[in-house]
Amino acid sequence: MDDALTDFLAAKNNDTTQAHLPYLSQLVREFLSGGKRIRPLLCVTGWQAIGGGDDVEPMVQVAACLEMFHAFALIHDDVMDNSDTRRGRPTIHRTMAAHRALSRGPEEAEWFGVSAAVLLGDLTLTWSDELLHKAGLSPAQLEAALPLLAEMRTELMLGQYLDLHATGELTADVDATLNVYRYKTAKYTIERPLHIGAAIAGAGPQAMAAFTDYALPLGEAFQLRDDLLGVYGDPLITGKSRLDDLRAGKNTALTALALSGADSGQTAQLRRLLGDPLLDEEGADTVRGIFEATRARDGVERMIDDRREQALNALARAPFTADAVAALEQITRMAIVRDS
Amino acid sequence: MDDALTDFLAAKNNDTTQAHLPYLSQLVREFLSGGKRIRPLLCVTGWQAIGGGDDVEPMVQVAACLEMFHAFALIHDDVMDNSDTRRGRPTIHRTMAAHRALSRGPEEAEWFGVSAAVLLGDLTLTWSDELLHKAGLSPAQLEAALPLLAEMRTELMLGQYLDLHATGELTADVDATLNVYRYKTAKYTIERPLHIGAAIAGAGPQAMAAFTDYALPLGEAFQLRDDLLGVYGDPLITGKSRLDDLRAGKNTALTALALSGADSGQTAQLRRLLGDPLLDEEGADTVRGIFEATRARDGVERMIDDRREQALNALARAPFTADAVAALEQITRMAIVRDS
Repeated sequence: MDDALTDFLAAKNNDTTQAHLPYLSQLVREFLSGGKRIRPLLCVTGWQAIGGGDDVEPMVQVAACLEMFHAFALIHDDVMDNSDTRRGRPTIHRTMAAHRALSRGPEEAEWFGVSAAVLLGDLTLTWSDELLHKAGLSPAQLEAALPLLAEMRTELMLGQYLDLHATGELTADVDATLNVYRYKTAKYTIERPLHIGAAIAGAGPQAMAAFTDYALPLGEAFQLRDDLLGVYGDPLITGKSRLDDLRAGKNTALTALALSGADSGQTAQLRRLLGDPLLDEEGADTVRGIFEATRARDGVERMIDDRREQALNALARAPFTADAVAALEQITRMAIVRDS
Repeated sequence: MDDALTDFLAAKNNDTTQAHLPYLSQLVREFLSGGKRIRPLLCVTGWQAIGGGDDVEPMVQVAACLEMFHAFALIHDDVMDNSDTRRGRPTIHRTMAAHRALSRGPEEAEWFGVSAAVLLGDLTLTWSDELLHKAGLSPAQLEAALPLLAEMRTELMLGQYLDLHATGELTADVDATLNVYRYKTAKYTIERPLHIGAAIAGAGPQAMAAFTDYALPLGEAFQLRDDLLGVYGDPLITGKSRLDDLRAGKNTALTALALSGADSGQTAQLRRLLGDPLLDEEGADTVRGIFEATRARDGVERMIDDRREQALNALARAPFTADAVAALEQITRMAIVRDS
């Protein structure tokens, strides 16, 4: 799949009618090089699980379409979260601002970075469509995939909106945060990629439901692991600052559990520190201490364990090919036991 | 076509699985109610020009897809330009910020507005795709339309990027500004909508070239008229402030002509006033005075006349149905002689 992306971007790079296209496609190429490729992997596995057949080439293009879509989602997400780093490098808006700052003042450069990243995100979304249109799917396959892709996009965006809407207003409601996870991660990262691959292979409703039973608990576990990595991970390995989520005051299951278990002193401290854009490592340590003291960290680990079990049980019952079940078991481990 | 958009958004509005969807779809509905519908009109006319046939219903859906795409483009454009008003109302990011400000501080509300408008733009882009997928086109028609839609999107985004890149650095190079107009307006607003309609009707390369010959001069004239309206128009009729373009320091053919004809005193004044975010009506009057004194305003009017003539000549030679030629003549007048 990396070749499909590289070839696609190289063609953009060689388009000499547009002065800025080589710079923009190079930025996307570098950005794409850091991904975990979990959605492409799931898409191809979903196709294999239904006995997709020998001609894997169109699926590779569809997988590339999902990875390009994910680049779009991350570029815009980083703008909205005002994040500095992603995949171990400066985010796109910071990179483009820095490029601009060579010739302009810092404030103008910063706004240029935001605007240019919004545009580059829009462009990658269009490129994602182009990859799909050129994938060589049959009309029936395209017709099966398109509504699912539209669902995936809408669910992600509404999940992001839920998330954005809740940011800055800390909640102790664990179920509400899990609802955001369902849309923003479980459906987007796990269920829909599987569904899209399976639909292209001609899956019926029963198989689609089996994917859902597996995907939703796994996706929630994946996001719960992400939350822990955002606070406890090694920035050198995750490629993300350990302060971003805390400074943004993101509602996570971790913060919700901590708030629901905190005494009044701890609650006051959490409300003061979470969402403070100037939070430093010392403040972050205090927050981490409260996460431990309220057993929120343990609670999230237990939630992950429960969901892993649910996902594996669903897999044991699913009408998938043996190869695909083995692959999905491995993906389950990768998604849940990881350090980046 | 308005019915197609209204029905589509009403279905989103009734989707009770997503708490925020009614609010978001209502915002889009209000936003869409103010448009001039020039792209949908051109798309259907392009289809008729090739003798598209009796079943106009799929074309209405495709036209709705273009109008929804345009909503996406404007919502993001207004974020990038930091504009206050659009179509006589507050821009989407201002509206969403104001909604948020009821419960939060002004700075947080402002950033929420920007983020939420980026997301709502992304959502309308996805909805635009959905309208196309549900249009009921045949596989062959879809295959003809998709590459042109992708071209249209890419051209617009690269045109926007050119524009963004040039903002804040005033140029006296009229040709460079016309190059931006070609991508950002002439191809996007005129040529591609015609091409998409025509391709769905099965147009051959000769007819496609004839559309291009008509569309590019008309599109440049359309944008040149827009520039004049941005500086001289009546805000109550255009729905846009007469200060936004000047404050943003937008490079227009008007500013380029003025700079290329200005003496050193006028040049210094233009460089001081254009791009000043606090420019007031008095400063704007000074700028307008220089546009008159350097005959830049007259020059733009002459450029519009030249292009109208080119477009009408191209139309006279084009292999289109007589009805379509008459409609395109009328569209030419509407696009060039207008006050909003």
